[in-house]
Parts: sequence; C-alpha cells; structure tokens
Amino acid sequence: MQWLAESLVAKRGIGWAKTPQTHELSEAKQGVYHYTIGPYSQAVLSIQPGDRVIVETRDAFEGAVKTEDDLPSKVLRMPFVNPQNGPIVIEGAEKGDVLAVYIESMIPRGPNPRGTCAMIPQFGALSGTSLTALLAEDLPEIVRKIDVDEQGVYWSKRVTLPYKPHIGTLSCSPEIDSINTLTPDQHGGNMDLPDMGPGSITYLPVRCEGARLFIGDAHACQGDGEVCGTAVEYPSTTSLRVDLIKNWAIEWPRLETEHMLMTIGSARPLEDAARIAYKDLVLWMEAEFGFDRWDAYMMLSQCGIVRLGNFVDPKYTVGTGILKKYLA
Amino acid sequence: MQWLAESLVAKRGIGWAKTPQTHELSEAKQGVYHYTIGPYSQAVLSIQPGDRVIVETRDAFEGAVKTEDDLPSKVLRMPFVNPQNGPIVIEGAEKGDVLAVYIESMIPRGPNPRGTCAMIPQFGALSGTSLTALLAEDLPEIVRKIDVDEQGVYWSKRVTLPYKPHIGTLSCSPEIDSINTLTPDQHGGNMDLPDMGPGSITYLPVRCEGARLFIGDAHACQGDGEVCGTAVEYPSTTSLRVDLIKNWAIEWPRLETEHMLMTIGSARPLEDAARIAYKDLVLWMEAEFGFDRWDAYMMLSQCGIVRLGNFVDPKYTVGTGILKKYLA
Amino acid sequence: MQWLAESLVAKRGIGWAKTPQTHELSEAKQGVYHYTIGPYSQAVLSIQPGDRVIVETRDAFEGAVKTEDDLPSKVLRMPFVNPQNGPIVIEGAEKGDVLAVYIESMIPRGPNPRGTCAMIPQFGALSGTSLTALLAEDLPEIVRKIDVDEQGVYWSKRVTLPYKPHIGTLSCSPEIDSINTLTPDQHGGNMDLPDMGPGSITYLPVRCEGARLFIGDAHACQGDGEVCGTAVEYPSTTSLRVDLIKNWAIEWPRLETEHMLMTIGSARPLEDAARIAYKDLVLWMEAEFGFDRWDAYMMLSQCGIVRLGNFVDPKYTVGTGILKKYLA
Amino acid sequence: MQWLAESLVAKRGIGWAKTPQTHELSEAKQGVYHYTIGPYSQAVLSIQPGDRVIVETRDAFEGAVKTEDDLPSKVLRMPFVNPQNGPIVIEGAEKGDVLAVYIESMIPRGPNPRGTCAMIPQFGALSGTSLTALLAEDLPEIVRKIDVDEQGVYWSKRVTLPYKPHIGTLSCSPEIDSINTLTPDQHGGNMDLPDMGPGSITYLPVRCEGARLFIGDAHACQGDGEVCGTAVEYPSTTSLRVDLIKNWAIEWPRLETEHMLMTIGSARPLEDAARIAYKDLVLWMEAEFGFDRWDAYMMLSQCGIVRLGNFVDPKYTVGTGILKKYLA
Repeated sequence: MQWLAESLVAKRGIGWAKTPQTHELSEAKQGVYHYTIGPYSQAVLSIQPGDRVIVETRDAFEGAVKTEDDLPSKVLRMPFVNPQNGPIVIEGAEKGDVLAVYIESMIPRGPNPRGTCAMIPQFGALSGTSLTALLAEDLPEIVRKIDVDEQGVYWSKRVTLPYKPHIGTLSCSPEIDSINTLTPDQHGGNMDLPDMGPGSITYLPVRCEGARLFIGDAHACQGDGEVCGTAVEYPSTTSLRVDLIKNWAIEWPRLETEHMLMTIGSARPLEDAARIAYKDLVLWMEAEFGFDRWDAYMMLSQCGIVRLGNFVDPKYTVGTGILKKYLA
Repeated sequence: MQWLAESLVAKRGIGWAKTPQTHELSEAKQGVYHYTIGPYSQAVLSIQPGDRVIVETRDAFEGAVKTEDDLPSKVLRMPFVNPQNGPIVIEGAEKGDVLAVYIESMIPRGPNPRGTCAMIPQFGALSGTSLTALLAEDLPEIVRKIDVDEQGVYWSKRVTLPYKPHIGTLSCSPEIDSINTLTPDQHGGNMDLPDMGPGSITYLPVRCEGARLFIGDAHACQGDGEVCGTAVEYPSTTSLRVDLIKNWAIEWPRLETEHMLMTIGSARPLEDAARIAYKDLVLWMEAEFGFDRWDAYMMLSQCGIVRLGNFVDPKYTVGTGILKKYLA
Repeated sequence: MQWLAESLVAKRGIGWAKTPQTHELSEAKQGVYHYTIGPYSQAVLSIQPGDRVIVETRDAFEGAVKTEDDLPSKVLRMPFVNPQNGPIVIEGAEKGDVLAVYIESMIPRGPNPRGTCAMIPQFGALSGTSLTALLAEDLPEIVRKIDVDEQGVYWSKRVTLPYKPHIGTLSCSPEIDSINTLTPDQHGGNMDLPDMGPGSITYLPVRCEGARLFIGDAHACQGDGEVCGTAVEYPSTTSLRVDLIKNWAIEWPRLETEHMLMTIGSARPLEDAARIAYKDLVLWMEAEFGFDRWDAYMMLSQCGIVRLGNFVDPKYTVGTGILKKYLA
Repeated sequence: MQWLAESLVAKRGIGWAKTPQTHELSEAKQGVYHYTIGPYSQAVLSIQPGDRVIVETRDAFEGAVKTEDDLPSKVLRMPFVNPQNGPIVIEGAEKGDVLAVYIESMIPRGPNPRGTCAMIPQFGALSGTSLTALLAEDLPEIVRKIDVDEQGVYWSKRVTLPYKPHIGTLSCSPEIDSINTLTPDQHGGNMDLPDMGPGSITYLPVRCEGARLFIGDAHACQGDGEVCGTAVEYPSTTSLRVDLIKNWAIEWPRLETEHMLMTIGSARPLEDAARIAYKDLVLWMEAEFGFDRWDAYMMLSQCGIVRLGNFVDPKYTVGTGILKKYLA
C-alpha cells in the first residue's frame, strides 16, 4: 500500500525498514490470559521493533458463551473478562517513546457461530449500571450467537452486516497502575473504536521499560458507541507489525489511517473524552504540521471528524480526526 | 430524486402530492427577526402543507461582524443573536402532528467575504464557559472572515474546504416555553447538525396550533461538534418544502436522508443526548419497522451511526442513525 | 432579629428602612397561576421596594393529588405543573438591579393531609427520565399523602420529620426567554434549595423592567438532592419582604442567612452547577470582601460549604457557601 | 463513648470485644510508601481483628513542599504522590467480608508550618485539567504553608480555621486492579470526605485475602468539594482500631458516626457519584432496617443528607446519609 510508505511509522519507526521477523502468539503459547493491564505480569514474548506478531485472541467472554443459553451472569466470573494476550516486550522501548501497532489483518478463528453479542445486566448505555446506579429493573439478559466469516456478519434472517473487524482493547502498560481490561484510559485499554481495524496504525505512549503490549477483544463489527454494551465479539487471528518511535512524548493514543489522523480520549462524561481528543489534535497540528494554534482550533470547528468508540465502558472513548489532505 | 418519492414525507405528508405554492420570505418581508422560539410572537407567513418557502436567512451574528476587527464582544448585544426567520404558520397543524421540512437548496447570499467564524470569550468546547465556569483566562477573541461560494469555503491560503451547507437552527414552537435561539431541545432549536443540509428531511414535533416554524443559522460547512463554538456562519437563500404529517406523536426531532434515518437528542452531559437519540431510534424501529425491541437495541450496537452536532451550545446535540437498507 | 439589621439588604435595599405596605396575593386575587416564567404574562400586582407580600401558594400539583389514588400520570396535564404566583412588578426595578426576597414565614394552608410526595414515572434521580433516557421499566408510581403542621411532617407511623419549610421556585423574569416552572437557571426557577426558607434572603438578578417576581412550590421539608423527584409539596401562606438593590450586577441567584453567604448555580452535569456557584463565590469574595482571588479560591477549598438543592430537575442546583465570620 | 458501644462494628466486629493489641506503623517501619493500592505490593504489618494501629502518615506531597517556593511542578515527580502507609494485612479477612476502620485520633506531626495547600497546574475544579482538557492557560501555581496544631489551622492573619482533621485516602485492595492513590473508587481510595475523621467508622469491602489496608493523605481541614484541588495537607499520627465483619457483602464504602449512617459513591459525572450513594442507602435501609424500598426512597427525598467529598480527583466522591434516629 502506497500510503503506508508515507505514514508516520514509516518515517519515524526505527524498525520499519527492516525485514520483519514473524512471531506467533498462539493460545497455547499465551497460556494464561490477562485481566489487568499493568507492569506486574510476566512477559510472554519479546520482540524487536518492526517485527510481526500473529496473535490468537480470545473473545471478550473467553469462549464461555457457547450457546444462547449461556447467560453471562451465569458463566462469567467478574472481573475475569476481556482476556488479553501479552504482555509483549519490545526491546529498547522506554518511557517517553511511542509504540506503533499496524494491524495487517484480522481473520475469524474457531467454529461458527463464533460471534457473540449479549445484553448483560447492569451494562449498556440504555440501562442502569454499576456507575449510573438506578433502582429500575435490569433489562432482560439476552445472548445472540452469530455466524461470522470474512464475507459478513449474519445477524439475523433479515439482516447481514458487513465484516468490519477491529481490535477493541490495545494497550501499553501504565507506569504503576494495573488497570482492568474493561476500562480505557491514557494507556489505551478498552477503547472499542471501530477505526482501529486492519489498515490502521495505533500509536501508544510507552510508560515503562519494554512498553509491554497487550491486545485482545476482537470485534467482527460494531456500531458507533456500542450501545447495548457488546459488539459482535469473536476469537481472531490478528496480524500486527509493531514498531518503536523514540522520543515522541504523547499523552493519549493516536491513530492513523490512509486518509486520516486521529487523536483519542477516554473519560466521563462524554464531552470530556471529546475535549481530550480535540485538544490533543489542536496541539498536534500546532507542534508537527505548522498550524497556528487558534487557526487549528477554528479550522477543526469546520472539518473535524468525531468518532464515538464506546459510551458503555467505565470510561467513554472518542476519536477526533482530520483528513490528511488538510495537513499537507 | 427517486428516493424522495419513497421517503416518509412522500408517504405520509398530506400536501406532498400537490403542486406546491411558492412563498418568499425575504429579509424585507421578515422585517424583525426573532431571538426566542415560542408561542408568543406574531406569525410572518401562513402556508398550506406541501408549500415551498424561499427564506433569506441572516447569519448568526445578524451581519454585525463585517470585518475581522468586529469583535463579537463589541458588536453583539446578548441575548440578541442567532436571528430566526418565522414564525411560519402551517394551516391545520395541531399538537400531536409532525412538521416535515425538506431542504431543497441553500445558496450563499450577499457580498464576500460572507462567511464568518469566531472564537468568542466564554464560548467553545475547549474554553471555560458560562456553564462550565472556570477561573482560567479566556482564550483570545478572534474573528475570521471567509470567502464562500457554491464551489468552496476558502478557509486559508493553505486550505479550501468543501461547501457543505446545513441549517443550524430549525424548530417548531414549544407549547408554553419561549426558548432562546442558542439552545437546542425537544423543539429542535440550535442543533448544529451537519446532516441537516440540502436533500435532508427534518421531522419536528408540533406542539401548538399552526406549528410555528422558525429557521435560521445557515452554516457553509461545519465539523463534528463545532468545537470552537462557531461554524462558517453565512447568510443564505434557503429553499424548503414544508409538509404536515397528521397524528404522528414524536417527542424529539428526526431526520431522513437518502440512505439513513436518524433520531436526534439534545441534552447535557453528552451521553444523555446520545441516550435520548438511541432510545428513540430503538423504539422507532420497534413501532414502525417490525423489530423486536431487544433485537433493535443489540443490532444498533453493531451498525448504529452516531453524529455529533454540537458540544458547545447550552445543550449538546447528537444524532443516531441507521441505514435504511437494514430496515427493509 | 439582630443579624437582619446587618444584612446586605438592610445595607443596600432602597426600601428596607421604610414601613412596609402589606399586599395580599390570595388564590382569588392570583386567579390564573403561571407555568412559565418570562416577560410575556400580565402582572398581577405592583409593589414598592420594601413592601410585604403575603402569598397563597398552591402545591406543585396544583391540588390535583388529593388522595393516594390520584396518580400524577392520571391527574396532571403536562406541562401545566408547578403553578406560580405572580408576576409581581416592583416599581423602579431595571435590568442590572437585584431583587432581594426575605422570607418572613411559611405557614401551611388547607386541610390535612395537605402534604403530597410522589414517585412519578420518568422522574427522580434513581430512575430513567426524559433526559437520561433508558429502556428500563419505570419505577412504580406511588403517591403519599402526609399530614403537615408547624410542629412536624408526619411521614409515617415510624417517622416524624421536622417542619423545615422552604420555597422551591423563586424567580425574576428572564429578559426574553419564558422558562417552564420545572427548570432552574440564571433567573432562579425551580432550585429546590432547602436553605431558601424562612429567615433567608434571596438575591435575584433583575433582567427586565419591573423585575417580575414569580413564587411558588412550597416544600414542608426536603432532603438534599430531592432524590425521588418530589419533596413534601404543600400549599402555603408565605410572607415576603421584597426590596430592590440598584446597580448590583449579578449573574446568578445568591442567598444570605444569619451565618452564611451563598451563591447558587444550576446546570448539568452536577459538577457544572457546583463550578458556577463556587466561581461566583470566589469572585464575590474578591469584589466585595477584600480577598485576593487565589486566596479566596484556596480558602474555600478549606471551608467552603456545598448544599445540593436538586439533582432531579431539568437542571441541577448547587449552593456554595461561606460562613460570614470568615468574611469579617 | 456510649454510641460506639451501639455501633455496627461493636455489634458485628469479631475482634471488638477483646483488648486490642497496639501496633506502631512509624515512618521507619513503613520504609517505602505506596503510590498504588492493589494486591501486588508486600505487606508491612499483620494484625488481628480488633487491633489498634498507630500510623505515621506523610502528607500528600511526601514532605517535598517545604516552603512556599517549592512549587509542585518542580518538586513532585508524577505519579509518585499521595503516599500511603500499608498494606496492613488483617488476619482472616476474605473476599466478601468488611473491614471496619474506627479513627480514634489524628495528631499533627513534625515542625510547623506543617500544613500545605497548593494550586497545582491542570488540577482543581475551576481549572482545565488532564480530564477536562481545555486550551485555556493554567491558573497560577501557588503554594501556601500553614501552621497547624490541635487548636486551629492558621490560614492567614485574617482567618483561623478550626482543626477538623480527616483521612483523605483509605482503602482495602481491589481484587486485581492496582489503582493510583489519586483515584477513589469502590475500594475507597482518595475520597477526601471530611466526615472521615476522628470518631468515624469506615466500612470497606474486602476483595482479597487479608484485606490489605492502605491509609494516608491526612487533612487538617477541608471544605466541601476541595475546590482548589488540595486541602490543608499535613503529616499526622493517626490512631485506628481495625476490625473485621464476616460475610457482609457491600460494594462501596460506608461510614458511621454518632448520629448518622452514610453510603459513599465515587464516579463522574458528579450526579453518578450521588446516584451510587443514594441507591446504596435505599437498599441498605431495605435490607437491614426494615424499610420498604419505595418508602426509603421517598423518605430520603425528605431527609437525606448529601456530603460532597471532592470534585477534583479523577473520580468525584459523594456521601449520602441518614440520621440514625430515623432508622430506629
């Protein structure tokens, strides 16, 4: 792909030009999956900047929801959900660097119906939750099992949705916190941003030695906001190239696609997530693309793109983008 | 346009089939513009369902910002901003009906630079405001005057943005409130939703006799969220067809385009605006498109579209949509 | 009362020193009550600064909930609730002045059980509402009729609560908006602040000629936040002294009691209401009590008092106070 | 104290009746303080239920702000702030139990001026922050050093505030998360609730073996909301009795004082913190005090007490209380 050769990672990544070594992170090799993202767990793999890793992710229910009778409240044991592969250590990564994660492909894994969507008690945007605590009755608990392949997501007899996969949870380790895998924050985490699919490059701030990359939570498709609380969750084989950009201090994750640069914020209430992202985009345009700060701010008021990842997780995630052509 | 013949207004509007009479609502005919939307002002025009109205809207500053030296804090007198044309009475409209407003075209009006964007003290998403009250210094007050024509918005030497006009403020009167034109709510108001442009149909709940349509606040283009607080504000000649759908009780505005149906909520915090819109969309799919409520909810979690209108006005506006093809 | 002689209204009110004339605003004299607060309704009474008005307020249900079988969803017709007495014109009041309302006494009116509390569908802090829109079932609709006298509020066999009355809704008219009586904002409105009882002085910004005072919504007692959505609503005979302070530009209501000065903000989310109030208090301490701005800010971090009025109305209300002894 | 003998811990604590053993947790014994609260650090002390611990807490700046010239942005190294003593293991504590922490006394420690208050860039309720991200300039960075003794907090020549100490941060370990000491949540954490002082009993949910108690962040006094971001931070000698209540599953911290029971929620936006707390109080009244759920809900609407801990930390903290006399 031509644009990839012009991408930020191609220009700044210290390992991009080399021939990547390919590592497999299969279920067997992973062994124990992780439910927090932090500095206290043992690395499962060590790679060089620029290397490729082929990861077997488990679905967010870790395969426990096999049929529509497997209600999450019965088969899940909180907080042990949304299992993550990793941590993968990237040699040479230090606090103050950035990890670039280019998603090459995401392929469904395992037998159909491999997709799972669920309405979970006390979860979802149109329900009382543990954080928006109400006295109302819970919504019914419902599981949907869905056939998924690379041609489509077979939602119902009436509706087939496109297969538009993305990674729901992608992170480097925080410096001292160990954060459950349901929560997005400055480290990445459970952002559930549909733009984070094949062909995208995510830039994550490195906060501890080796960066400690975690990945999981593949979605076969997802609407903006993930309103009921879950996407079409499925096990995947995801191929990544992981590179390192030295001395690029960013506070929050960023994302690049063929046509767009995006900044990402996670917070509550939702406007605070959008503020984080838009502020970061203004300052990025000023720092690296030659814009006056106020010109950038006013111009984004005319051409900024807002993408709602989720408004169901413990923090909500918003991406704000600008077309690259306006940065030229 | 073929899709228009299949639209909701074509199916349900009582005046759509007839040959529309065309009314002109010029600046001269309007005379006094309005700064609140309510039942207490005098009608400027009375039309039949299905009629066309060609409206000369003033820009949100009512033309007072003529040069980049005309600072809003100097030339505006609050709360007399965002002037509205109307109210237009639609004969036969009663509480419990819906007004359909199809925007046929929006043409720039007046001499260039006819576009205005401003950073206004205590306004905008990345500033303290009268509602998010802080002790921080205001951002600098800056005015940009911009040439606008139907080919483009000439933002700067570096950047030309596409001309993608929409109507920022569109309303029927509330039943008893008279609401300033800066605030969006159930009646419509200052939604600042970029989808509300030519080729769209907005459905507004009728709350009092004659519906009392107000319109104003044309934007030559606008990014998602209108982050600095203003779009490229400009005077327009906007052509509308206005029709009436009897006995369709909706609580909030809705919108139809060629490929999408959308519901619209306005509230703070931002997640509440999104909740309103998504709930309304779920219940609409259940009531009129044969979906089970929970199937609709879970499916929107996979294919729902979120559009952020503004997160700078006294209430924030979110539209949530679904492609029509999934409703077939 | 000694402190009253030292109060702000005693020092600045233009009519405080005179012998007040007493006006009666009985139910009969009021005739039609009001459901919006604005400049468009006809004055019911005109008084001089410093005069006394004895007002017969109706309860927030306008007496329609007579028994525990009178469910609000049956006997109320929205938006015609929370009826207000007024508008009372204060001669000489102009935009930029402040109206001072000293509540002398509140006496229960009408036969027992004269108190009413209700759980209303789509209302209350622990329920989905029209603004926090959810798919959850409504809570049950329940009415409680409660005996109230000046000795107590006889909640149940088990619990008698103290009679601690306050006025829920108190306002001057906005300049151009006409705001439903459920919503608090800069004009006052439905603040539901328990401190606004007998012995308190409320200072309201005047925004139009004659100030146009509205009053209603007496509560026999109320907890912080009014969590279920209603207080012990009751009809009262409320005695006020109303005075005028010229040329005191305030943006939001303020309140004075024997020991405390308080600023009041109304907004969503709740932190924004608190920000408005605390900012106003900092600037007040700087402008009138000789504090350095940052000293005031840091000192309130050590001794500021926060009072939650409601977090159930369309905007939430927070009062922030400081003991007068720290201002000496 | 008589009431203590009737308290919940006296009735249910397994070690309350015994003669407590007294442990000293001096600075020297503590050695390394902690900046996250979680299951991954090494216990510093092991005690029996009912024992007393006398803890030497460091101030939130760990003593680094010695003069008014020691600006936090210079002398602090984020995220290494708000140091905690502990973890203290309570023998026999298991997930599903509750730890009761009775604060006996808090005595100032070290030389005067031992109190510190600061305005820190990007921190405080009336400033843009890392979570409410704005483009506004930061407020000035200011340090105040304050003399503190058991008679008063000597704020300025003009103002002496009462010495009303409380513990800002009190926690049991989460099950798998390790949470920075700035953030309050279900585990307790940085609640900054002024009621949590000498004479109060805090009940904390136990989530892992041994409970793992952390404590720190003494405040010599604090206003509601801690508006500028910091209290009068100081080093203390705090004496606790710590007991264990078996099989009492609570989700959030609770607090008991002589006259009140309180529930505590931490979330953003602020109304969600209040919802958590009020819901928990309703359900507690139903579960343990014989109230019908809806009676409790409606009654709290008349007599509930709201206490704002902070609205400056990464989550905001609200306590909701009821007088014990109404539970009798």
